[in-house]
Amino acid sequence: MIIVTAMKWAPPFAAGQVRDHRARWILNEVGWPYEVRLVDAPTMKSAEYCGALQPFGQLPVLQEDGRPPVFESGAIVLDVAMRAGRFIGAEGTPERAAALQWVIAGLNSLEPVLFNVAEVEYFMDDEEVKTARRPVVVRQAKERLSMLEHARAGRDWFVGDGFTVADLMLASILKIADRLSLLDELPALAAWHRSILARPAHVRAEEDQKAEIARHTPADMRYSELAQQEGA
Amino acid sequence: MIIVTAMKWAPPFAAGQVRDHRARWILNEVGWPYEVRLVDAPTMKSAEYCGALQPFGQLPVLQEDGRPPVFESGAIVLDVAMRAGRFIGAEGTPERAAALQWVIAGLNSLEPVLFNVAEVEYFMDDEEVKTARRPVVVRQAKERLSMLEHARAGRDWFVGDGFTVADLMLASILKIADRLSLLDELPALAAWHRSILARPAHVRAEEDQKAEIARHTPADMRYSELAQQEGA
Repeated sequence: MIIVTAMKWAPPFAAGQVRDHRARWILNEVGWPYEVRLVDAPTMKSAEYCGALQPFGQLPVLQEDGRPPVFESGAIVLDVAMRAGRFIGAEGTPERAAALQWVIAGLNSLEPVLFNVAEVEYFMDDEEVKTARRPVVVRQAKERLSMLEHARAGRDWFVGDGFTVADLMLASILKIADRLSLLDELPALAAWHRSILARPAHVRAEEDQKAEIARHTPADMRYSELAQQEGA
Repeated sequence: MIIVTAMKWAPPFAAGQVRDHRARWILNEVGWPYEVRLVDAPTMKSAEYCGALQPFGQLPVLQEDGRPPVFESGAIVLDVAMRAGRFIGAEGTPERAAALQWVIAGLNSLEPVLFNVAEVEYFMDDEEVKTARRPVVVRQAKERLSMLEHARAGRDWFVGDGFTVADLMLASILKIADRLSLLDELPALAAWHRSILARPAHVRAEEDQKAEIARHTPADMRYSELAQQEGA
């Protein structure tokens, strides 16, 4: 039995983007059944949750009978793909190295840059600070996205001849860019993004997350609370 | 023959922290000989470098006869450890999952938070913006570091009974925290950090990098130039 810890509620704008969708997506891709355990902010901040499951109070966590829990959506995606022997190349091959390269590029060179823009738009209160910071972080994000599109060079897949965890992770991270309208000037990358998100395994992951969040979101949920919960 | 792309020059404060030290470190740990190709900012910005080696104009890149180049320090560390069959657990084991988990946690949940503080201290010019932002990012960083120390729970190693890529990556990232005096209130984590950095493979990686940077650093190198070069 596999259990994915997922977000019980979030603002509507974040529905579909909370990172448990990455764990759901890779599990759907490899065809491993799983159940979802919904948690809320107080649970994630509890000593029990942080001590036993996720030291930073984030989600998702993947729990599986007979194995220690695994946190960090990036690690869950890599671990499931490696164990399933799919979408990540064989150990020791150039395809494996390239898949790792693009997953890590997404998590370390792309997502933090996009999150800087999200922070300005969703989580900052001081208008002067926002006004001063916005052009800096938007310029950095657009530059990095343009470089990513240049590297893709029209290919359907970032690694080899088919879908890999590289496409999964980059497409997941590009949801942040899309929501912030940062893909408007990059129509080819936006079209690629849509094509990856159209995969049934993703559609189901996103719809499942959205349905659960819609069922549980209180109308007065604030963005700043989400910022503290959104995770890994 | 393995070639690591490394930084030709940088301000003295950054010497030992430029991310090519991670590639050097893991190569020293597994005992694979390598040569260093030093590059400067104009080279890293060139269409040739971005097109053939690193689409974001960052470093390090690992080049090896008969294999495509690999970028992102995190991917290089994982790829080398997997191919050497050391410091990362065997494919499919809980140890492998845990190693991935901590490497990704470092790159996605810890380093961006620390880099927010570094940005304030080293790369921002506007004093008002700095003053408004500093307490926010310092608080976030200290909280995350405290959680990391809590998760370590006195163990010498983050995974299993010996050194893994988890220790390498977290200790490398904690250099940023140490430089920013963010470990002062966490003496146990600071002591663990020193113990990992004392490994001969790291000492040699850091000293080699420092020696090359010292040889090539012009006295008037500015922090803002480093910000654009520092990479992946």
